[in-house]
Amino acid sequence: MRFSKGHGTENDFVVLPDPDGELDLTPARVVALCDRRRGLGADGVLRVVRWAKLGDGPAADPGVEWFMDYRNADGSAAEMCGNGMRVFARYLAHEGWLGGGAVPIGTRGGVRSVVLDGAEVSVDMGPAVVGEAGTASVEGEAFPGIAVDVGNPHLACVTEAAIDALDLSRPPGHDPSLFPHGVNVEFVSPVEGGEVAMRVHERGVGETRSCGTGTVAAVVAALRHAGRETGTLAVRTPGGRLRVTVEGGTTVLHGPAVLVAHGELAPDWWAAAG
Amino acid sequence: MRFSKGHGTENDFVVLPDPDGELDLTPARVVALCDRRRGLGADGVLRVVRWAKLGDGPAADPGVEWFMDYRNADGSAAEMCGNGMRVFARYLAHEGWLGGGAVPIGTRGGVRSVVLDGAEVSVDMGPAVVGEAGTASVEGEAFPGIAVDVGNPHLACVTEAAIDALDLSRPPGHDPSLFPHGVNVEFVSPVEGGEVAMRVHERGVGETRSCGTGTVAAVVAALRHAGRETGTLAVRTPGGRLRVTVEGGTTVLHGPAVLVAHGELAPDWWAAAG
Repeated sequence: MRFSKGHGTENDFVVLPDPDGELDLTPARVVALCDRRRGLGADGVLRVVRWAKLGDGPAADPGVEWFMDYRNADGSAAEMCGNGMRVFARYLAHEGWLGGGAVPIGTRGGVRSVVLDGAEVSVDMGPAVVGEAGTASVEGEAFPGIAVDVGNPHLACVTEAAIDALDLSRPPGHDPSLFPHGVNVEFVSPVEGGEVAMRVHERGVGETRSCGTGTVAAVVAALRHAGRETGTLAVRTPGGRLRVTVEGGTTVLHGPAVLVAHGELAPDWWAAAG
Repeated sequence: MRFSKGHGTENDFVVLPDPDGELDLTPARVVALCDRRRGLGADGVLRVVRWAKLGDGPAADPGVEWFMDYRNADGSAAEMCGNGMRVFARYLAHEGWLGGGAVPIGTRGGVRSVVLDGAEVSVDMGPAVVGEAGTASVEGEAFPGIAVDVGNPHLACVTEAAIDALDLSRPPGHDPSLFPHGVNVEFVSPVEGGEVAMRVHERGVGETRSCGTGTVAAVVAALRHAGRETGTLAVRTPGGRLRVTVEGGTTVLHGPAVLVAHGELAPDWWAAAG
């Protein structure tokens, strides 16, 4: 079984090429692959499959060749992942499977368009819908923010506080009536010189080094804080630097995608993982 | 640059074949390889080099072909690692580089002999020297133990307490006059049916899923607790099952060694890691 390993702003993935949909990717195999001691180690697995060969999943769009079958480290299927999509596109290009210009890719969250540009990959993340005002709290301190839906719920809080000093080892508090299913919380510095800094706490996970949809939510909130509805901002996250463009009713996430290694799983190990 | 990834009782390593000593393995490259997000991820790197081609390091023994150049995840060189040695031997066998019977391997801690036997690898860990009595403390509770030197210092405490319930998130207390440079601390159940359970706190690291020298120290202490000086015991660690034989003035660690994958580092990534 061939694999590649890569990361986008330190969100890391095992990529499994399965163009013809022949791979039985059980949850147990995903868990084994993502185990950072017993396996290769990753935040998730990206199965690279032709949409027509996907099997279980959304019906294929005949105009879209590739489908990103994204699995979380616990083996469950997930809709979409902005950082994963960049690594997925980088992998397609490495294999010579990515055409030029804007290329549509199928996901369980819908079709997304990707563009390769040197070390960067841009992903159309779809519209970000601004909701009500809310408040996050960390160690008793209140941080006013706004709800932003980017396919998943965010509470993005622009603050003058030193975000580096926040203790995000526990989930920030929030109003459960506003976010009954929990929420991802971003702490964002005000815009300065066209950029912001961000830290993010992902629901059910903890603080992460970067989060694609969280980066989009942070930019939407930072632009509004600066009195703007559209524009492009750079975002410094603990995992690296990204840019987000909010324009024309959609959002685009631009950032690096790095392939680290390519190889083969040891047959005995893969058989035992199964 | 070729690599393999493997683990011994969940202590994991990147293996770099460099038979002719041509690789410039800088600390920065080791750190990048071991980074679990930006790199492959591992507890350490095992460079596989013919001792005659080692360059800097102990003078080659003409009767010993291979040298295990072990590097910690922080890039520093280390003497010896029982779990790493098993993975090293498994890798040599995979390449067809390991002869039959007991094979001597060079390390910075001296020459060690390894034997492959099916899924297990046995490593001669050298003598374990019993020292004074000491006491570890966890959350105010005292655990009597004995000092055991296995090339590095251990305080092995046999206890009737439920070791699964111990909070080892902080270093256990110990007598600093007995261990001026710190100590690895093992908590070991009394012998029952020829086996013991163990948890270990490694100095400067924290609790780990297994520790080769700690497993040896645990068995030496458990045998003495049972009124014996020699013998073989199985040890259940959080990372898996090992066995230790104490006999004839030396100790032998037996345990599994698994190769997970083989591949090539992406040239751009490797160049940037340098």
